Amino acid sequence: MSGVPGDAAEAIVIAGQRLDHLGLVPATAGNFSVRLDARRIAVTVSGRHKGFLTPDDVMAVDLDGRPENPRQRSSAETLLHCGIYRRFPEAGAVLHGHSVANTVLSRAAGKALTLRGHELLKAFPGLPTHDAAVTLPVVPNDQDIARMQRGLDALWSDMADPPPGYLIAGHGSYVWAPDMPTALMRMEALEFMLACELEERRHAR
Amino acid sequence: MSGVPGDAAEAIVIAGQRLDHLGLVPATAGNFSVRLDARRIAVTVSGRHKGFLTPDDVMAVDLDGRPENPRQRSSAETLLHCGIYRRFPEAGAVLHGHSVANTVLSRAAGKALTLRGHELLKAFPGLPTHDAAVTLPVVPNDQDIARMQRGLDALWSDMADPPPGYLIAGHGSYVWAPDMPTALMRMEALEFMLACELEERRHAR
Amino acid sequence: MSGVPGDAAEAIVIAGQRLDHLGLVPATAGNFSVRLDARRIAVTVSGRHKGFLTPDDVMAVDLDGRPENPRQRSSAETLLHCGIYRRFPEAGAVLHGHSVANTVLSRAAGKALTLRGHELLKAFPGLPTHDAAVTLPVVPNDQDIARMQRGLDALWSDMADPPPGYLIAGHGSYVWAPDMPTALMRMEALEFMLACELEERRHAR
Amino acid sequence: MSGVPGDAAEAIVIAGQRLDHLGLVPATAGNFSVRLDARRIAVTVSGRHKGFLTPDDVMAVDLDGRPENPRQRSSAETLLHCGIYRRFPEAGAVLHGHSVANTVLSRAAGKALTLRGHELLKAFPGLPTHDAAVTLPVVPNDQDIARMQRGLDALWSDMADPPPGYLIAGHGSYVWAPDMPTALMRMEALEFMLACELEERRHAR
Repeated sequence: MSGVPGDAAEAIVIAGQRLDHLGLVPATAGNFSVRLDARRIAVTVSGRHKGFLTPDDVMAVDLDGRPENPRQRSSAETLLHCGIYRRFPEAGAVLHGHSVANTVLSRAAGKALTLRGHELLKAFPGLPTHDAAVTLPVVPNDQDIARMQRGLDALWSDMADPPPGYLIAGHGSYVWAPDMPTALMRMEALEFMLACELEERRHAR
Repeated sequence: MSGVPGDAAEAIVIAGQRLDHLGLVPATAGNFSVRLDARRIAVTVSGRHKGFLTPDDVMAVDLDGRPENPRQRSSAETLLHCGIYRRFPEAGAVLHGHSVANTVLSRAAGKALTLRGHELLKAFPGLPTHDAAVTLPVVPNDQDIARMQRGLDALWSDMADPPPGYLIAGHGSYVWAPDMPTALMRMEALEFMLACELEERRHAR
Repeated sequence: MSGVPGDAAEAIVIAGQRLDHLGLVPATAGNFSVRLDARRIAVTVSGRHKGFLTPDDVMAVDLDGRPENPRQRSSAETLLHCGIYRRFPEAGAVLHGHSVANTVLSRAAGKALTLRGHELLKAFPGLPTHDAAVTLPVVPNDQDIARMQRGLDALWSDMADPPPGYLIAGHGSYVWAPDMPTALMRMEALEFMLACELEERRHAR
Repeated sequence: MSGVPGDAAEAIVIAGQRLDHLGLVPATAGNFSVRLDARRIAVTVSGRHKGFLTPDDVMAVDLDGRPENPRQRSSAETLLHCGIYRRFPEAGAVLHGHSVANTVLSRAAGKALTLRGHELLKAFPGLPTHDAAVTLPVVPNDQDIARMQRGLDALWSDMADPPPGYLIAGHGSYVWAPDMPTALMRMEALEFMLACELEERRHAR
């Protein structure tokens, strides 16, 4: 018994199939979650290929990342999911994936990556127009996930209105949204813009 | 009741699945339409992922973009579809999509993009040979769609024989044709040539 | 009645589905054929998308390209298929497709393109080792297909052992083999090597 | 009768379908095996397209590569599989595939290729962190497979802890793992990192 309602588990299974189709979850990379209630989330278990999940590969944890069923182990980055749900009450679903574009750009970027003038920026909230810019934080990779989350919390505290996404250098992108379909849409929009940026930087050299 | 005949809705649903397979409709990008009669078109509703449409995601509007069913809202760029149907009596289907190639090239281009010497130019009308060129207008992006359409109308008035397609800077490509299968063929041909152009410009730097 | 045996038509339909999966037949590009007997071949009809063929989209022509059923019209490049079957008695199947790599490389190449040191060269006949080279002719594109074929015949007459393939500048690649599965294997091998070459030339600039 | 248990044959068939989906087995490239017991392995037969295998395309050989059924012929590189199973008792499955990235990088590399700072390095054993490096040997291609294996044996003897993978210049990558799912995960992780490296080297020029 995973303690996860069927529709939450199904949303995560389907998200994984779509992100695998888009090439965003190589090997066992990537992890996904949805908020179940004020204190619990459903999240992927550790170590599975995210394109071939079953509902049994989804488990419940509290907002400190503690599993309801102590025999289960959730994805290594669970605390990053918890950090998002704790900070952003509107967050209902979180996606993390790896692409060639987000890996190469995040490894080359400094502390932030700015996307400017793309029509698909409208997929992010509060941007009714393409004539705008979104600046995504880029944080260093760290195997101490709690420490990485503390860094993100500090970063968000300094921002007036943090965007619903960030990059970890060499370790993929995170996006969130009120629900899973919107989170998938933001992930597709972000990855499309990053693929364009990678091309443009080649041209601009 | 959408007021859209089943075959028109189905043509749009299938077009979306194909363009998603080709990677041309990331997030909620892209929109499609077919002409129903002299005064009405069927067009995609706003906000859906275009790779997963159902017939209920297609609605009828008149050539000024007014919905038959006032509770439905059509894609934001509906007036660009209407502008094409009003201007070109032979237009029976319109497709709009985003690719890395059309985004990067349209952002870098000035007012036009010329494709030259490609065998696939024959997919455009009036070109029985590859030994030719098609010059596609590139217009600036604008969230005021009516104003963007006025700019296109002015542009077309200055052209002897406007080609059935254009690019919006950072906002994808539009193509049209007498029917949906031909529009899909032109979209595939255009996007293939743009992908080649992007490669060639890298080599030419 | 197409006059084409079911297995020949089916081999062509399946080849089209595979080449579409590999992105080698955009729009209505590409055409395929198999030899039926000493004087006849089965070839794709004109104008169809080659990823969605049915057996009715395959027709019989003689080695001068004349249709058995005068109401059918075969692919524009039928005479290039006939030229291969007339010249090379061992040819049993011919494939033609367009890729970004074969388009960009053939437009940039002079009269030939040499592939060297690839393990997949072994897909070509008479090369038991990778430590070899295959030089593929590159011919200028020409809407006069009969004239293009005369150029190829002249070229082949000057070669001791013509390889089972060539490129047309900006107009794709041709490969042939004793049977369709082997032709598909050669096409995949050729296109893989061309994709590698395109990458290597970027690095070498 | 192939003498191969059904689950071993099925693991190899499914691996081929996945690697074809990922574009890693063009033409007849690639070969796969699983260990059956201390003295026997199941390996792909020679010459098939690895994306379309059936259980009959899998055969048993001993650790010197001799077929149990003398009428069957295994993949040309069988001795490389045997070399891995003889040397590494923990190896339970071996995969070999070709990508544009592994071909281009292995042709350009000297004797080794170092991957550094990638989160996906954790797919390799003994690396609990991304803050590490894996150095993969790159060996020259050679049609004398026994000689190539002797070179690998000499190389491994000089290494304290050989990583479970290597590249052959212009001839793809090899990875192994205790079981097939883990081998597939390592292949996906390796190929993802190689695709990133190829992009980064373009930027770094």
